[in-house]
Amino acid sequence: MQEIEQVLSFMVEIEKLKDVHRKTKPVGLARYENSAEHSWHVCLSALMLQQYANQPVNIDRVIKMLLIHDLGEIDAGDTIIYATETPENKALELAGIKRVMALLPAGQAEQYIELWLEFEAGASNDAQFAKAIDRVPPLLHNLHGEGHSWKANKVTKEQVFKVNSRIAKGSKPLWELLEEKLQAAIDEGLLK
Amino acid sequence: MQEIEQVLSFMVEIEKLKDVHRKTKPVGLARYENSAEHSWHVCLSALMLQQYANQPVNIDRVIKMLLIHDLGEIDAGDTIIYATETPENKALELAGIKRVMALLPAGQAEQYIELWLEFEAGASNDAQFAKAIDRVPPLLHNLHGEGHSWKANKVTKEQVFKVNSRIAKGSKPLWELLEEKLQAAIDEGLLK
Repeated sequence: MQEIEQVLSFMVEIEKLKDVHRKTKPVGLARYENSAEHSWHVCLSALMLQQYANQPVNIDRVIKMLLIHDLGEIDAGDTIIYATETPENKALELAGIKRVMALLPAGQAEQYIELWLEFEAGASNDAQFAKAIDRVPPLLHNLHGEGHSWKANKVTKEQVFKVNSRIAKGSKPLWELLEEKLQAAIDEGLLK
Repeated sequence: MQEIEQVLSFMVEIEKLKDVHRKTKPVGLARYENSAEHSWHVCLSALMLQQYANQPVNIDRVIKMLLIHDLGEIDAGDTIIYATETPENKALELAGIKRVMALLPAGQAEQYIELWLEFEAGASNDAQFAKAIDRVPPLLHNLHGEGHSWKANKVTKEQVFKVNSRIAKGSKPLWELLEEKLQAAIDEGLLK
């Protein structure tokens, strides 16, 4: 197969991410979000929030990380952030991203697998910021959607604060603002 | 409102792109594609096809263009590529992107409106490549989906070739490969 045809096969394969369903509904919509539209949303959100990163970030790398961050879910499926990440699931996601990237012409996959691993490790400035942004949309979906996913999944305020306070590792001002909004949600009885 | 809160308002507003429906169905899916997941798909596709651009491109700018290229559709809706672009519709899209970008903190909108206008003009290397990539997924959807959208919208092979041969302005090898696939679709009776 010619190399450019391999990229078209990749383009067709990644269509499957449009059928991986997440655990929250986009604001105003009655259906659940899929991981492809989520990926777009966090890329554009990261671009517009870059000035609030704790440390200097390379926004172009952050966007590339976020473009590919969920590709492993084509094989592994989506897991709610409040579930314990099992080694089995992480291994499935890694195998998944390797399988999908292997569709690309020789030599093209490695850099993106590295970037995915960097995101997963969450240690670099770019990864910490990318991971922080990735956590924001489900909060907005719940805050603007009557806490639907918190309620459906019996997520407690303690869990929400514990898991999402990690947003502060990527952006302190972002977490501070969200903390206020979460506190208001508790006061309104949306989050218990 | 504090500036970071303005970005959160933007994040909530752009959720609406997930409810703008296009005219083709993703490969393997029974539903129509939305413009948010499409935007993700073309960003990642551009990244992986960058080496086939006719002219050197700044892939980071191309990706940013593609992240925002459909935001005007929140107000204007999606138009099939085979419909004549009316000045009225383009004006609606420009007004739409200006409205959405105006939600951002002062000074942040202008650069993205410029980038959107550059994409629309289609004159720069980056815009020609971005526009070429933007045209590919509907072809793949039809080629892998029994020509469903060509049939539903009574699109002829002459229209398909006329509109999509512009892909060659951004990437000659990409258009040459697609031309072969379209010819095969004609031979199979998918495209008439």
